[in-house]
Amino acid sequence: MANDKKFVEQITPMEEDFGQWYTDVVKKAELVDYSGVKGCMVIRPYGYAIWENIQHDLDARFKALGHENVYMPMFIPESLLQKEKDHVAGFAPECAWVTIGGQNQLSERLCVRPTSETLFCEHYKNIIQSYRDLPKLYNQWANVVRWEKTTRPFLRTSEFLWQEGHTMHETEEEAREETLRMLKVYEDFYAEALAIPAYVGRKTEKEKFAGAEETYTIEPMMHNGVALQGGTSHYFGTGFCRAFGITFTARDNTQQYPHQTSWGVSTRSIGAIIMTHGDNSGLILPPRVAPIQVVIVPVAQHKPGVLEKAEEIRKKLAQKNVRVKLDASDNSTGWKFSEYEMKGVPVRLEIGPRDIENNSCVLVSRVTREKSFVSLDGIEEAVEKMLQQVHDELYQRALQNRTEKTYDARSYDEFLDIAANKPGYIRAMWCGDAACEDKIKDETGGVKSRCIPFIEDHLSDVCVCCGKPAKHLVIWGRQY
Amino acid sequence: MANDKKFVEQITPMEEDFGQWYTDVVKKAELVDYSGVKGCMVIRPYGYAIWENIQHDLDARFKALGHENVYMPMFIPESLLQKEKDHVAGFAPECAWVTIGGQNQLSERLCVRPTSETLFCEHYKNIIQSYRDLPKLYNQWANVVRWEKTTRPFLRTSEFLWQEGHTMHETEEEAREETLRMLKVYEDFYAEALAIPAYVGRKTEKEKFAGAEETYTIEPMMHNGVALQGGTSHYFGTGFCRAFGITFTARDNTQQYPHQTSWGVSTRSIGAIIMTHGDNSGLILPPRVAPIQVVIVPVAQHKPGVLEKAEEIRKKLAQKNVRVKLDASDNSTGWKFSEYEMKGVPVRLEIGPRDIENNSCVLVSRVTREKSFVSLDGIEEAVEKMLQQVHDELYQRALQNRTEKTYDARSYDEFLDIAANKPGYIRAMWCGDAACEDKIKDETGGVKSRCIPFIEDHLSDVCVCCGKPAKHLVIWGRQY
Repeated sequence: MANDKKFVEQITPMEEDFGQWYTDVVKKAELVDYSGVKGCMVIRPYGYAIWENIQHDLDARFKALGHENVYMPMFIPESLLQKEKDHVAGFAPECAWVTIGGQNQLSERLCVRPTSETLFCEHYKNIIQSYRDLPKLYNQWANVVRWEKTTRPFLRTSEFLWQEGHTMHETEEEAREETLRMLKVYEDFYAEALAIPAYVGRKTEKEKFAGAEETYTIEPMMHNGVALQGGTSHYFGTGFCRAFGITFTARDNTQQYPHQTSWGVSTRSIGAIIMTHGDNSGLILPPRVAPIQVVIVPVAQHKPGVLEKAEEIRKKLAQKNVRVKLDASDNSTGWKFSEYEMKGVPVRLEIGPRDIENNSCVLVSRVTREKSFVSLDGIEEAVEKMLQQVHDELYQRALQNRTEKTYDARSYDEFLDIAANKPGYIRAMWCGDAACEDKIKDETGGVKSRCIPFIEDHLSDVCVCCGKPAKHLVIWGRQY
Repeated sequence: MANDKKFVEQITPMEEDFGQWYTDVVKKAELVDYSGVKGCMVIRPYGYAIWENIQHDLDARFKALGHENVYMPMFIPESLLQKEKDHVAGFAPECAWVTIGGQNQLSERLCVRPTSETLFCEHYKNIIQSYRDLPKLYNQWANVVRWEKTTRPFLRTSEFLWQEGHTMHETEEEAREETLRMLKVYEDFYAEALAIPAYVGRKTEKEKFAGAEETYTIEPMMHNGVALQGGTSHYFGTGFCRAFGITFTARDNTQQYPHQTSWGVSTRSIGAIIMTHGDNSGLILPPRVAPIQVVIVPVAQHKPGVLEKAEEIRKKLAQKNVRVKLDASDNSTGWKFSEYEMKGVPVRLEIGPRDIENNSCVLVSRVTREKSFVSLDGIEEAVEKMLQQVHDELYQRALQNRTEKTYDARSYDEFLDIAANKPGYIRAMWCGDAACEDKIKDETGGVKSRCIPFIEDHLSDVCVCCGKPAKHLVIWGRQY
C-alpha cells in the first residue's frame, strides 16, 4: 500500500461525491489512518507535519502578544465541571467519563476534558489576588474529547488536538478587546498562513458557546459551499469567576471579579485546508504550512549531471529555509508528478539535461499547473516568488468561490429556494428570535445562522422568516 | 501571592529536608501548582517553558536521525491492550478506564494510554507490507496516564507529558542499533542540554519494561544521592509483531516479522534538573533549557542613562537569540537578586552608573556567584562564554557529586553498611538471580538494581549477596 504502489490511486471526483472525494484525499495523501478506537484517528507523519506548521505559526502570533503556554490536567472532576451551570449543560452530554483508576472504582468520576475553562478557573483562583496579577494571558496546546456519534477525520472526531487560550482581565473593556484581538489573529492566520478568506462575526444567542456572554467566530466556506467553523473567541464576562469565587483587589481597594475570555483553533483547520483548496488531483497545500513546499523532479535522471544539479539546487533552497524534497527514486517521472500533485506540494521544480544546458529549470504551480522557465541564477528568489504566487492564487480562488456562492435572500420563498438548490451562504435579515432560527433549520434540513457580520448590510426592513422588524443581517449556511 | 510579594519566600534547606526543599522550589519558583485533580499537576508558564525548550532540543535530535512525528488516539480498547500478555500484565494495574461515553455505558471499556505500543502496532499492521516500507521511525509527543497512589510534581504524577518513539526494522541488528542509538541520544541530551552526567546501561530481567526483550536506561544521580530513571530505550524483538500479526515480505520473498523498539523521555527530566542542580537559594537551570538565560538587573536605575543602557544591552543580546529579560520594575535590587536566583536564571548582568562610565558591566554565575567585570564592547561574546561556563560548572559539579557518592561494595556487610549510611550508588557484583535483587531490596528498605553498565569493572568473582559466581557488575541505588 505504501511504497510499493506503481501508480497513483484514483480519487473520486468531487462533483460526483464530495464526501467520498474528501475521504479519498485524506487517506491517499496519507494524512490519517482509521484506528480501531471508535471515533479516533491516527494522524500520520504528513498530516502531523501540517499540524506542526500550524502550531508554529499560531504559537508565534500568541507569544508576540504576550501569551504564555501552560499545561492543565486532562481530567475534570464532576463537581468541578458542574460549577458553572450553562457550561456543564452544554458539555455533559458529550463527555467521556473515567470511573475506574488503578483497579478501584473512583469515589468521584472524572471527565476527560472537552475544554478547560473550569481547570483554568480553579488555577486562576489560586494565583490572582490583586490587579497587579492581571491580565493573565495563558494558552495551552492539548488533546480534548467530545463524544461524537458520526465522525470524519479532522472535521469531527471524538478526540482532537487544539489550542485553547484562557485569559483574565481587570476590566470588561480589556477582556472584550482581547476577545476581538484573538478573533483577528485567527482571521489573519487563516488568510496569511492557510490562504483562506473567512467571514467573521458574532454568533446568535442560540449558537453561543456554553457559558459565554458573546461568541465570535470565523466561518470559511468550503469548496462545495458548506461552512466550517474555523475558530471561535468567547467573552465570558464574570460568570465563571462568580461561580468559582475568583476575585481580586482592585485599584480602589474593592474586591472585584475579573473578566474572562477563551479562544481556540483545532486540527479541524486541516479539514478546512483540504476542502477549501483541494481538487480532483488531490490535496493542494498552502505554502506556509506545507510540509514539502517544493519537490524537485529530475527529468532523464540517468543522464550525467542531472542528479548532481538537482541536488545542488536542493541544497541552495534548503539553505534559504525552503522545505524542499528531491525525489531521485526510480519511479517514473509521470508517477512522481501525480504523486506530489496528490500530496498537494505547492511548487514542482523540473530539471533535465536540456534545462541544464540552458542554465534554467521549470517551475510549475500546483494550482494553475502553469509552467515558468526560470534561470538557475537566482533560483532561490524565483522559488520564493512562486511560493507567494501559489499562496495568492489559492486565496483568490477561494475568495472567488465564496463570492460566487454567497446569495442574498429578501423573501422566505427565495431563501428556501436558494437553500434547496444553491449550495453556499445566504445573507438574509433576521428578527433576533431563536424561533426563526429553529424554523429555518427545520424547513431547510439544516441551514443555521453562521454569524452576524461586523458590517451589516441592510437588505430589507423585516425578518426573512417571520416578517417582523429585522434586527440583524445574518449569514446562514449548512455546516460540517 | 504572585506579584505582591515584597520579599522572596524562604526555602527549606536541602540538608534539613530534601523532600520539603524540592516541594518549596517547585512551588516558589512557580513551576507548578497543585490541582484539585488527584495526582495531576498544573504546569505553570515558567515550568512549561522549560518543557518547550526540552521538546525543541530533543525533537531536533530525533528529526536529524530521520524520525517523523505522528499522533495516535489517547484511548486503548481493552481488547487491544490485552493482545501482548506481558505488556498488559505490566500496565493493567495502573490504568485509568473510561466506561461511559456520551451518557452511554461503553460496550468495551477504554484505557487512557499509559504508553502506546499497542496503538502503534495496530497502525503499523496497516501500513507495513514489504521490506521497502521499513524502517518506520515514528515518534509522538503526548500525555499519558498511570494511576499513582503517592505523587510528586514532575517525578510521579498520574498524568505526565512525554515523547515516545516507536520504530520497526527489517532485521534484529538494525533494531538493536536503533535502541542503542536512541539511548545515546538521551545520554547526549542529558549531558549537552541539561548538564547532567548519567550512568547508562541495561536493566536486569526484573527491571525490564513490560513486554521488552531488553531495556536500556540512563540513570542520573540526584544531589542527595538518589537515582532517577532519566529515560529508557527498549528492544522488543518480534513479540508484539507476533501478537498483532504484523509481517512483511522480505527481500527473499518470505514473510517475516519486523523487529521493534521504543524509547521515551518525560517531564520527569524537569525533576532531574531541579534535584541535580538546585541549591538552598532555589533552582539552577542549565542555560540550554532555561526560559530566561540572562536577567539584566539595573543598579540605581533612577539615575539618568541606566535604563537606556540596560535596554540597549537587552536588545543586543536578544538579537543574538539569547533569552534575556530586563527587570526594570521598582522592586529593590536585593529582591531582584534573590528572585532570579530562586528562579535559577543562569547568568545575572548588573549595570549601574559607574559601570556605564567604565563602559563595562558585571556578569554573575548562578552556580559559583563569581563576578566578572566585562567590557560592553563584545558583550554578546562575553555572555555566550559565560553561559557555556555555567553549563560546564553545572556538569562538573554534578559529576563530582556522583563520583563522591558512588561506592564499591565487595561484601554483603559492606553493602548493607553503605546502603544504611551513605546515600548514593553502590557498585557490586551480582550472580544474575532475581532472588538476590529481591533480598537486597527487602533488607535495605528499597535499594534496587539501576543498571548493568556497558563497561563492567570486575570487583570480585562472586555475587555480593549470595556468594555464587558473579555474572555482572550492577549499579545499585534507591530511586524516585
